[in-house]
Amino acid sequence: MREQLSKTEIEQYLAAGLELAKLCREVILSTVSSGFEVSRKADRSVVTEADLQAEKAFRARVEELFPNHGILGEEFGATRPDAKFQWIVDPVDGTEEFAAGLPLYGTIIGLHYNGQPLIGVIDHPAFNTTYSAGHRLGCYKNGKRLDPNQVMKDLPPDVSPRVGLSPRRNFKRYQDNGAVFDQLVREFDNHRIYHSCYDHTAVVNGSLDAKVEWGLRIWDLAAIQVLVEEAGGKYTVVKQEERPGGGVAYSVVFGKRALVDQILPICRS
Amino acid sequence: MREQLSKTEIEQYLAAGLELAKLCREVILSTVSSGFEVSRKADRSVVTEADLQAEKAFRARVEELFPNHGILGEEFGATRPDAKFQWIVDPVDGTEEFAAGLPLYGTIIGLHYNGQPLIGVIDHPAFNTTYSAGHRLGCYKNGKRLDPNQVMKDLPPDVSPRVGLSPRRNFKRYQDNGAVFDQLVREFDNHRIYHSCYDHTAVVNGSLDAKVEWGLRIWDLAAIQVLVEEAGGKYTVVKQEERPGGGVAYSVVFGKRALVDQILPICRS
Repeated sequence: MREQLSKTEIEQYLAAGLELAKLCREVILSTVSSGFEVSRKADRSVVTEADLQAEKAFRARVEELFPNHGILGEEFGATRPDAKFQWIVDPVDGTEEFAAGLPLYGTIIGLHYNGQPLIGVIDHPAFNTTYSAGHRLGCYKNGKRLDPNQVMKDLPPDVSPRVGLSPRRNFKRYQDNGAVFDQLVREFDNHRIYHSCYDHTAVVNGSLDAKVEWGLRIWDLAAIQVLVEEAGGKYTVVKQEERPGGGVAYSVVFGKRALVDQILPICRS
Repeated sequence: MREQLSKTEIEQYLAAGLELAKLCREVILSTVSSGFEVSRKADRSVVTEADLQAEKAFRARVEELFPNHGILGEEFGATRPDAKFQWIVDPVDGTEEFAAGLPLYGTIIGLHYNGQPLIGVIDHPAFNTTYSAGHRLGCYKNGKRLDPNQVMKDLPPDVSPRVGLSPRRNFKRYQDNGAVFDQLVREFDNHRIYHSCYDHTAVVNGSLDAKVEWGLRIWDLAAIQVLVEEAGGKYTVVKQEERPGGGVAYSVVFGKRALVDQILPICRS
């Protein structure tokens, strides 16, 4: 379906995605410099003024640019859920780290067309670093194209791969898949749990070799598929499950191709 | 023993520690900007020009400042191992992250007196952030004193603590303590594995609630005890074991006091 769209059209959407990321960054950094309150949502997860204000600014700008497109955000739900084009945003992914003063959070933006990702942007305000990709356009770090032969190069056989994981609590959130986590940490014992979208961009630039994400919502994953595929890597959905509170949770593996193929059987066991 | 030393004397050593950290940072950042080779040591761990050059500069400057003090570094071993004062350095802790282009690495510097820590400095060049502490002098982030009532405040009962861990491979390195890791990830399932000294400073500033480090060498831990104690937290050695290749490996827990007390029985089981 997305093949119907011209490269020029996708380039325009990518430019809009970068503008939206810049807007979110401005809101987030102004919240940081003026200080912000941390509150907890009904599910006890953390939310800050930065999440709320950045998503509001994002939504308002999408309404101006593309009044017929849908919008789906972590904080304020869905607008025009039946539209073909869907702008999806997690304004502050890694809110727990953000609220604790750690720089590893980021803004995740994706534009999906009939359910297929067209563009993806992950911005790290604290690092002044933006990753972006468009379908058939390549993957970029601060505007410089990443070379798939560099960032997705297979590892030498005697080097133990560095695999990012979700924390174990994610594996038990909807069903008890703790055994999958336990098997992964045995097989890939040089693991990291940086958390959230910091892992996504670490995979895209080749610093992490692969990542297993478990039980995430669509806005957490809105950017990574097109980013990692355009960087030359592989992205596979392991499972989708209905959440008790409504909506779908996704478990996915992405990264260097041969390594993803090694990880998948464990995730499916 | 360290109580014999005056506050003024310790302040002078702390100033020297900060000067040494600045020197290492300059060497590391100049290596980054000029590009560097990554090689592997006999144990297959990674080493770069930054590790080697920073430790050389560190050693030369200690020789000038304190010609009777001992020096112990990760890359070049021990000088005057019988001296009362020992300057201990890991020039690039988290070399694997450093070599992969991730900003989470740091320089660890400690001065120990008769085996007791006097001063500790952890510098993160990529974040322009330095943590420092001296025995009885308090703990500082970029020169600003941290308030123990803020950074080591106990958690509300309904918040799941964020606990940093070593990767599972550390728990199996000398003896098979994989079961300790498995129990920790069950009891504290909102864990992180940022790796190395990034976790140390995250504990010191209260962003991580505690950290369990397993099977580390003295240079990895040279700064953290005095940093965390002066920040108002607790530091406990769980075990020391002789390494097959010589030297001692340490397993330790540090962070918020009540949480450290909850974690210790699992580590000792």
